[in-house]
Amino acid sequence: MRIEEIDLRELTSSFEFFIKEGQKARLQHLLISMHPSDIASVINRISKDEYRLYLFNLLDKEAASDTILKIDEAVREDLVELLEREILTEIVDEMESDDATDFIAELPDDIAKDVLESVEQEDADDVKQLMQHREDTAGGIMALEIVSVNKDATVDEAIMEIRKKAEEIEEIYTVFVVDNENKLVGQLSMKSLILARGQKPVAEIMERDVASVHVNMDQEDVAHYARKYDLVSIPVVDDEYHLLGRITIDDIMDVVEEEAAEDLQRMAGISDEEELREPSAFRIVRGRIPWLIFGLVGGLWGAEVIKLFEGQLSKVHILAIFIPSILSMGGNIGMQSSAIIVRGLATSEIDFKDIYKRLFKELKVSLINGIALGMILFVYAVIRMDVQNSTAHKVMIHPLELGMVVGLSLLTVILVAGFVGTTVPLLLKRIKIDPALATGPFITTSNDIIALFIYFAVATLILHI
Amino acid sequence: MRIEEIDLRELTSSFEFFIKEGQKARLQHLLISMHPSDIASVINRISKDEYRLYLFNLLDKEAASDTILKIDEAVREDLVELLEREILTEIVDEMESDDATDFIAELPDDIAKDVLESVEQEDADDVKQLMQHREDTAGGIMALEIVSVNKDATVDEAIMEIRKKAEEIEEIYTVFVVDNENKLVGQLSMKSLILARGQKPVAEIMERDVASVHVNMDQEDVAHYARKYDLVSIPVVDDEYHLLGRITIDDIMDVVEEEAAEDLQRMAGISDEEELREPSAFRIVRGRIPWLIFGLVGGLWGAEVIKLFEGQLSKVHILAIFIPSILSMGGNIGMQSSAIIVRGLATSEIDFKDIYKRLFKELKVSLINGIALGMILFVYAVIRMDVQNSTAHKVMIHPLELGMVVGLSLLTVILVAGFVGTTVPLLLKRIKIDPALATGPFITTSNDIIALFIYFAVATLILHI
Repeated sequence: MRIEEIDLRELTSSFEFFIKEGQKARLQHLLISMHPSDIASVINRISKDEYRLYLFNLLDKEAASDTILKIDEAVREDLVELLEREILTEIVDEMESDDATDFIAELPDDIAKDVLESVEQEDADDVKQLMQHREDTAGGIMALEIVSVNKDATVDEAIMEIRKKAEEIEEIYTVFVVDNENKLVGQLSMKSLILARGQKPVAEIMERDVASVHVNMDQEDVAHYARKYDLVSIPVVDDEYHLLGRITIDDIMDVVEEEAAEDLQRMAGISDEEELREPSAFRIVRGRIPWLIFGLVGGLWGAEVIKLFEGQLSKVHILAIFIPSILSMGGNIGMQSSAIIVRGLATSEIDFKDIYKRLFKELKVSLINGIALGMILFVYAVIRMDVQNSTAHKVMIHPLELGMVVGLSLLTVILVAGFVGTTVPLLLKRIKIDPALATGPFITTSNDIIALFIYFAVATLILHI
Repeated sequence: MRIEEIDLRELTSSFEFFIKEGQKARLQHLLISMHPSDIASVINRISKDEYRLYLFNLLDKEAASDTILKIDEAVREDLVELLEREILTEIVDEMESDDATDFIAELPDDIAKDVLESVEQEDADDVKQLMQHREDTAGGIMALEIVSVNKDATVDEAIMEIRKKAEEIEEIYTVFVVDNENKLVGQLSMKSLILARGQKPVAEIMERDVASVHVNMDQEDVAHYARKYDLVSIPVVDDEYHLLGRITIDDIMDVVEEEAAEDLQRMAGISDEEELREPSAFRIVRGRIPWLIFGLVGGLWGAEVIKLFEGQLSKVHILAIFIPSILSMGGNIGMQSSAIIVRGLATSEIDFKDIYKRLFKELKVSLINGIALGMILFVYAVIRMDVQNSTAHKVMIHPLELGMVVGLSLLTVILVAGFVGTTVPLLLKRIKIDPALATGPFITTSNDIIALFIYFAVATLILHI
């Protein structure tokens, strides 16, 4: 049974009802037919901690182990605090090494220590070994459970090796072939093993051109690599090509989703990854307010720019009317050009060396956009504005002059915004700062300040004020 | 050989040099050791069409078929126009049905027709069948090459079936089990086939709880489904569970990347998907200018709002100074709150029914942010502004009053922007418009207009102007 069209809410209510009534047999019957991911969805939605605990304790240890990994982080944190240490230990024993490591890393320190002491020695060693790698590297996402055979082995021996590991590893896609020093020399697909005669040496049927990744490779690069070469199971090696572990495609999918979410959030000016369910308001504020303060300070710099031209503004207060148009265009153009660069950098389709080509293209685009939009603004100003007659200051501004000011300013602003939007992410990437950070508030804010300056400078020059 | 650290530029120059010199043997030697993805990267970077063609024609048909799929769309379009029909046909014959379909769909109509007429009958039928499905559904991304056996078959018979399809299907992860009416009843992992005795009926070792997707399911939903249940190969079925095809994980990865890119671009106000290499400036403008015009028109509405308060502005021109701060905060807050909703909707972690809960949380966040940021703006105004003395209009504004105006306006603007940013994407999703469209220009622009109105209204009320 998969929950697809069924309303998760209704299902959750039924579960809550049965839990309240203590209908243990009925609940167990339901749980047995459900996929761990669906059980996790229900547990996420159950509102009371004790109900969650009751339901979770009805699972056998294998289902419990699969389910807990799929529960939302915030819910999981509450749940593990309530679980008995003994059950936690059993759950970890069931997990593959990469999951066990992530899971234990999330536990409060005292619980983590207890669990590590009570799990099987081998599992504890694996976790300790994996914890030495940085979380966002190949080493941080790899699992140690692999099927590997010596290059002198036969197909039958490879199959025996699979049999030995079958219990421990849920899905096996590839058997790795190593030399006597455990260096990776080839790989066998399951298809080739099924089709080959048992006595055949694996060396005769293995692929020798194996795509492996270094243990320190950034997880984002691992994802590109997997996607570029269509890999389902990627061997992880050290400097000397010793086989250390493997990364499977489901972990790669998680990386891709994670990085996409991160880029999107950073573009929107959210610095910490924000959880979607149950984060406290203060935690959300903590992730969001830094860029808001940054934006506000940027706005105050904008205020300073206007203050600089206060004399002109007091003579022609109508200049204020076009501030929103000028600002929003600077921001939008900056967003568009930088989003393309950020995306291209993320997928490695653009690199720093392309800067002149990109810039040239972007300036052409900005020129076309600038002329078109500048003309719209010009026409609007000419049609909608009356002759500005500030008797107090003896200035008279004709709508045509005003149109010239706003049209020309907009063109200039758009050219500059396109330039800034293109170069800033490339430069940031160059100095190894995440370019996604630049796209949102940073570029919008700096474009605002520049745009205001251009606008008032052009107005001062053309209107002689 | 994989190109990883090697500079792609240098490699491309070497290739261009050898092509110019006509060193065919040397080029072929190089090509043989390279992965199709890397060959494609080089071809993407080669600048002259005739060089690309020369190099591509050196590939054997299998490598050519793998390579052409990895070449950038714009480059591929140029290349296929130059290729002989005969070679195109050979290339298509080598492809799996899903790739062949996408490839032929991209060809100019006359070439597509020619190719479809000359490829093997079976391939042509497959392509015609697949073309009937919408591109962004499970049917649009599935392949027809599957290994399936009847539920009464033995393990040995399943292996014979694999042997029969081994040539045609590059990677086999799963053997599907069907009943006499070709309805999906189970699946076999390669591991289980390797480990089982040959005479055993597959019905005894198959998994019966198979996760399948309907042929009309949206590809984004297929991706969520695959990720939720950690699937590597997904069977596609019709209403009656007849097995139609399968989707493999590499296609899912493409969907995930595609959708993430689309969300990011839409958020930045780019309506067509923008290619990263070689699009013409006019094509880029076409994708970007609609939202820019939208934004400009929004800015003009902002101008109208200010015009509405022209009397007040002429009395207290200094009000213009705070327009940038107020506007940028409205925009930033709107971006942050909507980005979270858009992301949550994309990954199905949020749905419309959560609207009240999300709204309540968002208003709490906005309240905290609004009070903090409003106080900053208040303090700035009190410190930096002098007493505004407009003798012409007999108004005197104390910095404290001005501080009150801007602080209170900002708080109100932030509350409203949080509300708009949360509700608009949820409502759009409700009426089946892509909420990512809303996040960028739409919310920023409407927040601008609302913010200006709030600011000038608060100023009018507090300053009695």
